[in-house]
Parts: sequence; structure tokens; C-alpha cells
Amino acid sequence: MTVKTRPGLLLIISSPSGAGKSTLCSHLRREEGDRLWTSVSATTRERRKNEVEGQDYYFVSHDKFQRMQKGGEFLEHAEVFGNFYGTPGEPVEKRLNAGIDVLFDIDWQGAQQIRSNAEDARVISIFILPPSMAALEHRLRHRAQDSEETVQFRMSRAHEEISHWEDYDYVLVNDDLDACFKRLHAILTAERVRAEKEYAIKDLAISLIKK
Amino acid sequence: MTVKTRPGLLLIISSPSGAGKSTLCSHLRREEGDRLWTSVSATTRERRKNEVEGQDYYFVSHDKFQRMQKGGEFLEHAEVFGNFYGTPGEPVEKRLNAGIDVLFDIDWQGAQQIRSNAEDARVISIFILPPSMAALEHRLRHRAQDSEETVQFRMSRAHEEISHWEDYDYVLVNDDLDACFKRLHAILTAERVRAEKEYAIKDLAISLIKK
Repeated sequence: MTVKTRPGLLLIISSPSGAGKSTLCSHLRREEGDRLWTSVSATTRERRKNEVEGQDYYFVSHDKFQRMQKGGEFLEHAEVFGNFYGTPGEPVEKRLNAGIDVLFDIDWQGAQQIRSNAEDARVISIFILPPSMAALEHRLRHRAQDSEETVQFRMSRAHEEISHWEDYDYVLVNDDLDACFKRLHAILTAERVRAEKEYAIKDLAISLIKK
Repeated sequence: MTVKTRPGLLLIISSPSGAGKSTLCSHLRREEGDRLWTSVSATTRERRKNEVEGQDYYFVSHDKFQRMQKGGEFLEHAEVFGNFYGTPGEPVEKRLNAGIDVLFDIDWQGAQQIRSNAEDARVISIFILPPSMAALEHRLRHRAQDSEETVQFRMSRAHEEISHWEDYDYVLVNDDLDACFKRLHAILTAERVRAEKEYAIKDLAISLIKK
């Protein structure tokens, strides 16, 4: 009996800046190892000192980005303040075909595009809410030495991002990091069980009732 | 701000006899405490020595059972070898309204009736498969001093039960009890997050984007 490999899931996580998404995603990567691959975006913006090519982003020229876009190479793309960002589809498809789940740390617009471009693939989308706007503002103020202007700007972007909470399959509140991570991990586990129903589980069930 | 209580989930677990369902259910009860209530069936069959009234079953007469059935008191009911079994709806509704999730340890026929009678309530159904028919037979032979006839009879019932695997939202393989329990528990956690989206989460999200 040959068991077909289940194709990977597309796991989208969105949240306003400061809600703890990066920490949750890095916990998930650590826990999952090779079973979860994080999608890397291409961008035209300048590389920052601490960023690594091919790990944080693929840093590309405007020309290259436009060629990729025209060539239909992006699963989703957007312009944010004059810089372009896009998710190359080919490395994602490679993982999905190999049964590796793919994590997307993107905003509501990217999520929307991935949902409509995913075709047959299973997309699971999760939104992370802060427990309150005051808590979010507190985190934004204390995690970096940003100017008052930057904090206010991020807060208004947070409102916009949160207003799309309803588009997501699951919405988590990050009031306690450990509890929130447990729920996030449970969602991935449960969705894998659900996805497996059409693959290894189906083969097993059919073999059990045969004869 | 008054937060509406989320109504409880109906969590159905079915499996052939010997697949480890009772152990999984009792682990789940221990882990969940007051947040999960196990539905108790009424039956016309005789009480066995180790069974406790109101805990294992409500033991009722044929007359009483028929009155309950005519009165529409059952969420589901069935006849199995001349004995009647039914799930009284009122104690279930009481828990659901109080936000307590309700566990049903029933077969595919009961599951089907509950799905169609549940109306607005959220029903999550899980089927437990043995890793192989040989493993199932092994467990049936070793857990009790049943006659060869009884074992063969249970095996043929197992075939019938397993043939309904596809009707369930989630299908788990009990090849390793701990691993299977973790997946079962993850499903409950994830489904609670999903259900909460329309209640506490909705209130929070609305309050965050207001002003």
C-alpha cells in the first residue's frame, strides 16, 4: 500500500505590530523544526544591519521585483510606503508538495491575496489580538526607542489591521504568552489531523474495512 | 461591557469497541474537570454489578423509556439487541447554556441523530481508529475473558462502525495512547478558540477598534 503524502498547509498569522506575533512564530518554528517552513518575502526596501539575506527577506531591486511580478511569481504582493513586498510562490509550492507546512507572517492584505490564490491548498488563518489597546501601546513604547510620532503611527495602523479580524479562521488573544502559544500550537495540531483525513487516514480506514 | 457566555460544544467521540475510546474519554475528563460534562444515557438494559445509576447510565423501565421517547425527551435513541438506549436532552441543554462542553461517547447512529437534532449548537465529531484490525482483535482478546464467539461478534460490529469514519470531522489513529490523547485534546482546544470567535473574542475585537 502506497500512502500519498499530505500536501502542506498554508498557515497565515497576522496581527498588529506589537501584539507578540514574532515571538509566537519563533516559538512555533522552534517546536516544529523541519515540519514547518517560514515563507521569506522579497522586498525592494534597504536591508537593515541585523537582517540576513534569504532569511529575513530576499533583497531585490525595483527592476527585479517588477520582472517577478509580471512573471506571476508572487503569491501575494503589496506596496507599503514606496517599498514593495512580495511572497515568491515557487519555494512555497516546493514545500507544500513535500508535505511541509508553510508559515506566513503577513498582514491582512497579504492574507486576503493568499486565500484567493491558494486554489486547492488548505489555508488556515490566525489573527492575534492584544488584550487591550493600552497594552499594545505599552508594548510599542517599551520594546524600542521609537519616537512618539512612530508610536502614534503604529497605533493607527493597528486599528486598521485589527478591523479585519473577522476574515480569519481563528482569533487568539495574547494576554499570556504561554497560554496563547498553547492554543496556537493546538490549532496547528488539530488542522493537521483534519488535513490527514483525506490522506494517510483515508488509506488506513479503507484498508481496515476491506475484506 | 457584558460578555455573552459562549454556549457549550457537543463533542462526539465514536470508535469500535476496543480502540481505546473509554481510556481517552476518561483522560479528557480528568484534564478538563468542570469544563467538560459527560452525557449519561438512559437504558432499559439491566444494571451490571460495577455500574452506578446516574453515572454510567440512568436505568429505566421499558414503560418509562417509551414515555420519554414519546415526550421527545431524547436527543438520540436506538435499540441494540432488544435493549433501548437514549440520550436525555434536558441535562445536555442545561450544560450547553451554562457554557459547559458536553462529551458524548456514542456510536455512529447516535452521532448521526445528534448532528441532525443539534440545531444551532456546534457539534464536533471525532472517530478513533485502531492502527490495524489485528491490533483491535488483540486488545479485545486481552482486555476481558470473552468467548471466541463474543470476540468474533465484536469484530464484525467493528467493521460496521469503522465503515462510517468519513462522517466525522476528525479521525484519529490510536497507535500510541499519549500521542493520540494530545491530538484529541488539541482538537478540543482549537474548536473552543473557533467557537469563542463569535463571543468573548468578538466583544474584545469590537471594543479594540471602537473610538
